[in-house]
Amino acid sequence: MNKSALQIARAAYQPKLPQALKGAVAITEGEATQSVADQEEIKKLFPNTYGMPVVKFVAASKAETLPAMNVGVILSGGQAPGGHNVISGIFDGLKALNKDCKLYGFLGGPSGLIDHKYMELTADIIDEYRNTGGFDIIGSGRTKLEKQDQFDSGIEICNKLGIKALIIIGGDDSNTNACVLAEYYLQKKCGIQVIGCPKTIDGDLKNSMIETSFGFDTACKVYSEVIGNIMRDANSAKKYWHFIKLMGRSASHIALECGLQTQPNVCIVSEEVEAKKMTLSQIVNDIADKVAARAAQGNNFGVVLIPEGLIEFIPEMKVLISELNDALAKESDVAKALKMISAQSLSVYNSLPEAIAKQLTLERDPHGNVQVSLIETEKLLIEMVKTRLAAMKAEGKYCGKFSALGHFFGYEGRCAAPSNFDADYCYSLGYNAAHLIANGKSGYMSLIQNTTKPASEWVAAGVPITMMMNMERRHGEMKPVIRKALVELDGAPFKALAANRDKWAIETAYVYPGPIQYFGPSEVCDQPTKTLMLEKA
Amino acid sequence: MNKSALQIARAAYQPKLPQALKGAVAITEGEATQSVADQEEIKKLFPNTYGMPVVKFVAASKAETLPAMNVGVILSGGQAPGGHNVISGIFDGLKALNKDCKLYGFLGGPSGLIDHKYMELTADIIDEYRNTGGFDIIGSGRTKLEKQDQFDSGIEICNKLGIKALIIIGGDDSNTNACVLAEYYLQKKCGIQVIGCPKTIDGDLKNSMIETSFGFDTACKVYSEVIGNIMRDANSAKKYWHFIKLMGRSASHIALECGLQTQPNVCIVSEEVEAKKMTLSQIVNDIADKVAARAAQGNNFGVVLIPEGLIEFIPEMKVLISELNDALAKESDVAKALKMISAQSLSVYNSLPEAIAKQLTLERDPHGNVQVSLIETEKLLIEMVKTRLAAMKAEGKYCGKFSALGHFFGYEGRCAAPSNFDADYCYSLGYNAAHLIANGKSGYMSLIQNTTKPASEWVAAGVPITMMMNMERRHGEMKPVIRKALVELDGAPFKALAANRDKWAIETAYVYPGPIQYFGPSEVCDQPTKTLMLEKA
Repeated sequence: MNKSALQIARAAYQPKLPQALKGAVAITEGEATQSVADQEEIKKLFPNTYGMPVVKFVAASKAETLPAMNVGVILSGGQAPGGHNVISGIFDGLKALNKDCKLYGFLGGPSGLIDHKYMELTADIIDEYRNTGGFDIIGSGRTKLEKQDQFDSGIEICNKLGIKALIIIGGDDSNTNACVLAEYYLQKKCGIQVIGCPKTIDGDLKNSMIETSFGFDTACKVYSEVIGNIMRDANSAKKYWHFIKLMGRSASHIALECGLQTQPNVCIVSEEVEAKKMTLSQIVNDIADKVAARAAQGNNFGVVLIPEGLIEFIPEMKVLISELNDALAKESDVAKALKMISAQSLSVYNSLPEAIAKQLTLERDPHGNVQVSLIETEKLLIEMVKTRLAAMKAEGKYCGKFSALGHFFGYEGRCAAPSNFDADYCYSLGYNAAHLIANGKSGYMSLIQNTTKPASEWVAAGVPITMMMNMERRHGEMKPVIRKALVELDGAPFKALAANRDKWAIETAYVYPGPIQYFGPSEVCDQPTKTLMLEKA
Repeated sequence: MNKSALQIARAAYQPKLPQALKGAVAITEGEATQSVADQEEIKKLFPNTYGMPVVKFVAASKAETLPAMNVGVILSGGQAPGGHNVISGIFDGLKALNKDCKLYGFLGGPSGLIDHKYMELTADIIDEYRNTGGFDIIGSGRTKLEKQDQFDSGIEICNKLGIKALIIIGGDDSNTNACVLAEYYLQKKCGIQVIGCPKTIDGDLKNSMIETSFGFDTACKVYSEVIGNIMRDANSAKKYWHFIKLMGRSASHIALECGLQTQPNVCIVSEEVEAKKMTLSQIVNDIADKVAARAAQGNNFGVVLIPEGLIEFIPEMKVLISELNDALAKESDVAKALKMISAQSLSVYNSLPEAIAKQLTLERDPHGNVQVSLIETEKLLIEMVKTRLAAMKAEGKYCGKFSALGHFFGYEGRCAAPSNFDADYCYSLGYNAAHLIANGKSGYMSLIQNTTKPASEWVAAGVPITMMMNMERRHGEMKPVIRKALVELDGAPFKALAANRDKWAIETAYVYPGPIQYFGPSEVCDQPTKTLMLEKA
């Protein structure tokens, strides 16, 4: 296999561990816990995994002993930088506890457990993947583990392979399901523990216990690198506005973090749009005003950051889409369907550029629903800002040139080789998970805390997944789920943006983060995200 | 001004110089030269700058002396990483020769010279821009310096500022124009020297004298980083084909270099398409065959690299576009205009996806011409491959799923902070230019050769620009120009692709170059491009 010079050099990197995990380890247990809300319902649903204590590991003088045991690992959902390091951390952690432990990887995500597709992860294989990006070591998948026959199929293969514990690396839903699985296996007394690991580049899996989900750091740094490069181009050529859409449908953490790293002229935060009930034209007018203000200073260029999920956070668009879905379900002729929606929605629909309006009505998914993810929000905004500026020009309120280019960054960051932060953090998460297993824990999430400090001071912990749950309506039914973390408008990261954005809009205050560095000075290579630093300050 | 940690750390980097330029320097002159073709015509056009010798600098025991003089610098055309280092090299080179020399920057490209817009580049300003990307120190522009009144306007401002030499940093056209200007100033005996510097990320400014143009190295490394990340994503998710268009309209060096760095499943080279007179459907069928071959192995994913200029290299598309331009000039009604084109072109037109066909006929530039640069070639190919695969499926020749995503990378790379190679190369080009000035040269290009060796062994040279010229038809007139370097099908870089691409098509042989590193081991940080290594091997 051909490898790049960096792949070869980076393979030798030894990720840093918390001091507590470096040698012999002892466990300490805290008080009984309860869920963040809906305690009674959740307790009823999770009789075996509710109320367990938070645990922490500390350095000990005498090593734990672990009988040789087999462990299975599953990657669930979208890729995030550092997944391979979680797995190498699990491997090294298990081998340090007992060199006869074996690690199995289930292939292609949770379906590998259900369909009994797996491989043993030997030292040779693990060594090929240390500090690399991607989930290609065993693949990932989006099958949801939520049905009893799936759980039972898991028992079958675990028994066959002698697997005593499963580690599920995934986002909020996957960790919720990991806990349901843990509960079921405890009820069944089948002797299989289940541990979760917090993954997602979107950054929306965090709370008072989880400081950050892995991959967010690296992905945001890759996006910020290319955003910075485009800013420098904008500021050199001085003739383009760049509208940059960033991955992250359900929350705007990525756009916000990239905004803090690069200081763009506009950074839209979907949660603010929703909270302030902003309309599409308000958003468009706001951008156009900034374009005009810069043009008045002779600066016909700029950069706008747009969170991928924006459309679904604009209240009037949400109504329009929902009405369109209902109407098109009853009437497939678009012209007729449009007569069935409210006057308000029709007016929003008519304000959309033709191509986007077509996308809304013509390209529907197999269930007949509008495919919001296909809407090119960056082009939508460019077209509408262009129209608005033409009107402003006619009124004498704008004199400038507006040439705009659209970009979408997502796939560029999900599989980047992990930053030092993510490499260390993920390896520690995996190593820590091995210790949770050694201590017989199930229904826990492996957590590393105090992450704004040097790695040696990081805290290695395990938190009952039920502790992070509440009840939410999903597909018409109340379900126990881990609460998704949206951008908080009174949180420090958003406030830092809000305090500076008017200045950044007018001044050209771009910051150029440059590419992730693995070998340089610590202040360049080892910094966590601005979001994390601000939240922990 | 807020700066990133990397910006701060990178500012301290001291670019490497050839040994010959490190201390006192002496000049050596070779034989008289002649142009690569059309010697008589070019000699006639350039009586004062034709036939001059190639010069080289060598270490000397006694320092040159240079009277205090003022120099002007101009950035011309599209941005390329390292432009700021050329300027800091000029500054340091001049100051080393005489600390009372002054450097002026003309603002916004050649128009700064014509319109007398300039700034003095002091040590404080230069220090802010060392080792940074972008052309924002003085801006760039695309005004062509080719008319006598422009040249005379230049004399005026140079006389006013006491400028005795101009350095023009640009691509093939800008260097041709630099030579025309040098010739004119010699004829006028106005005492202003003109030196060129070879810039362009496209890599098409190279020949037996110019080993590589600056910026190509860094830009290709940025593109290869994100291509590699997308490949890792493709190989993890295993469900998408990524069609990636890469900047570079007039030649495919960027796509070829990125192909060699990352080993994609398909890498199209426009020059091959033209040489083999390939049709659009041949290109589409070839991709579809590879998609089908991979699908047969269960691999419904892959990566295709597409050079930006592809459309203009497909002979039948060139004919179609030219016929459409003629027809639409006479008849603005599209349906009627289509009746005026040849049957062959109409059949090509009808084979295009609807959206692309619309782009061809509806979106025309102010001269009424088809805007080829607006055509989203990556989407065109995706649509046509999809259609082809559906036909193959109906014939039982394909069983798989085809989901494709399009990307375009260009602006991400033009203003990246220069790699060590470009930082060193550019600084040396600038430093060398100062020595060419000190030696009274004009009509020369500053060149650094032997660039695949460590910087200390690099050769510092000056080459008469006329030597690289031939006569070519431009806008209906024969003009002296520097010959543009296209990808040579019998050159080592293309041969390396051709020898491996069948294997790369079927196997998943991706290489992940990762981000540019500035601080690590030399084999990671200091390697030139594959193209350069293969050409000089």
